[in-house]
Amino acid sequence: MQQKVLTGDRPTGPLHLGHYVGSLKQRVELQNTSSQTVLIADLQGLTDNGHTPRKVSDNILNVLADYLAVGIDPERTTICLQSALPALSELTMYYSNLVTVSRLQRNPTVKAEIASKKFGSSIPAGFLSYPISQAADITAFRATLVPVGDDQLPMVEFTNEIVRKVNSVAGKEVLVECRPLLSKVSRLPGVDGLAKMSKSLGNALTLGSDETQIRKAVKKMYTDPGHLRVEDPGNVEGNVVFTYLDAFYPEEAYVQLLKDRYERGGLADSRLKAILEECLQELLRPIRERRAEFLADKAQLTDILRAGTGKAHSETEGIVQGVKAAFGLDILG
Amino acid sequence: MQQKVLTGDRPTGPLHLGHYVGSLKQRVELQNTSSQTVLIADLQGLTDNGHTPRKVSDNILNVLADYLAVGIDPERTTICLQSALPALSELTMYYSNLVTVSRLQRNPTVKAEIASKKFGSSIPAGFLSYPISQAADITAFRATLVPVGDDQLPMVEFTNEIVRKVNSVAGKEVLVECRPLLSKVSRLPGVDGLAKMSKSLGNALTLGSDETQIRKAVKKMYTDPGHLRVEDPGNVEGNVVFTYLDAFYPEEAYVQLLKDRYERGGLADSRLKAILEECLQELLRPIRERRAEFLADKAQLTDILRAGTGKAHSETEGIVQGVKAAFGLDILG
Repeated sequence: MQQKVLTGDRPTGPLHLGHYVGSLKQRVELQNTSSQTVLIADLQGLTDNGHTPRKVSDNILNVLADYLAVGIDPERTTICLQSALPALSELTMYYSNLVTVSRLQRNPTVKAEIASKKFGSSIPAGFLSYPISQAADITAFRATLVPVGDDQLPMVEFTNEIVRKVNSVAGKEVLVECRPLLSKVSRLPGVDGLAKMSKSLGNALTLGSDETQIRKAVKKMYTDPGHLRVEDPGNVEGNVVFTYLDAFYPEEAYVQLLKDRYERGGLADSRLKAILEECLQELLRPIRERRAEFLADKAQLTDILRAGTGKAHSETEGIVQGVKAAFGLDILG
Repeated sequence: MQQKVLTGDRPTGPLHLGHYVGSLKQRVELQNTSSQTVLIADLQGLTDNGHTPRKVSDNILNVLADYLAVGIDPERTTICLQSALPALSELTMYYSNLVTVSRLQRNPTVKAEIASKKFGSSIPAGFLSYPISQAADITAFRATLVPVGDDQLPMVEFTNEIVRKVNSVAGKEVLVECRPLLSKVSRLPGVDGLAKMSKSLGNALTLGSDETQIRKAVKKMYTDPGHLRVEDPGNVEGNVVFTYLDAFYPEEAYVQLLKDRYERGGLADSRLKAILEECLQELLRPIRERRAEFLADKAQLTDILRAGTGKAHSETEGIVQGVKAAFGLDILG
């Protein structure tokens, strides 16, 4: 049977190269082999931006343009907006009665995120319970396959716990369990070499970066700090430029050749960076241009999102009606 | 300006005399002077019945029949079903990002209820956050007046906190604050004299009680344990039969007469109970009969609830759209 894939992003900023290698490329492939839904998760974006909703709403069409620019095809992938799908909020309400507060507080992913976000003792209720909302998203589309990083495996397990509880209360299978699709690529570091590329850390190359931004970013990338003269042997391990070449250069064999030469000595950092820069310029030029074209026509973007959301609306309404019927809450039909 | 009243009940059992004196009688009056909405709060009923949803769904039409039987008029009062109003779940999601977990845990009403329900450390997430859902209900109808007992005053204050936060984030008044309408009558004790009449405590007289149930309930009521002989002086204070006469007997002066005579001595408990029983039989007979008539026609009940819920749907959709627009989340129109 064809897999049903659910994936998405919080629209809290434009997408960047980290998203590209981590998920966007995979989605362009998955739309050929599976039934794929991509959710622009604005409600989830609000869970830690409750007091600045414009930071979320202003980025919805940017993220959509990013999707279209990299080749996610609205004819083959359902692209939809979370806040326009009431069924997702309704399912969250039902599921939240089947999950204890202490279970949420023990969730390793949430624990790590709470620590990193420095909420202190002021954790928004919506943030603590966002795994419930995520379970609502996954189940509302009957997703069987959920692309995740390994730090998000507990979320998939949490979703399946809820699925089993709902089915047990309902006395029949109204929801389906899902399994994780683990990313094969490791997380792309920031252009500064820090573990995570992130808009808020200022070390990201967004998909809309112009030529100058790309040039500057590559220029300041770390290579091997011990590689002082061209003829010296250099280290490939931990060398950000090589990490990026691994991630983006189309010919693996050529990157291997460069690595060998760099390790032997005789390959200048400037030459290496020129190769990476050309590669990134070639990758991002058509994406940037398509992105700008899409963003120039907001009405078209809105139409695309409305069409996908309309399709998703029918799907998700069917699921929430099924849950309600199983609970006896369908008396108004 | 006419007040907008929101009130309602969790449909976790048929309503009883405690509801009648505490709220139902007042609603029959309020529908003449205010714009009143009565919400059958099935979603809230699920917050501590998540694993037994039938306990909630099976009681929805019972509660509706109770309303109609006591004289709540669907032409003058909007009677609607919480789970059929997605706007209430959506607003709950938005509000939950503006409330911290510790603020919920400090809520005195929730604290008291958690203690009484013996959840231990297994508090359902939905139960902890039900004040947010209640704030969604109140604000979704732009209620200005909320009938409550004094133990629920913190809930009204909590709702107004959310109103002020949403308006502050929105930069304009999208929601209105409400004020409590404190009940003038004190809480009716159970027929066993315990502080609270409750179906689960087995000390309730439901509105559908038959003659025998009423007779038996009055028969076993406590009077004054020291009042052994008819001619002895008796105590009125703490005497459950007098508490009920105060609550239900139509002529206050006559009850005062009985009290005086009882305190002087010479009024038998059996005589007193006969008066109360006749009073309760007369009160409940027409209610029981109307209730049975309504319950005999489930299709009519469903139609009434569907009509009220339809009206409520338009109202509440307007409010959630207003909140979304103020947050910039109206791009799909």
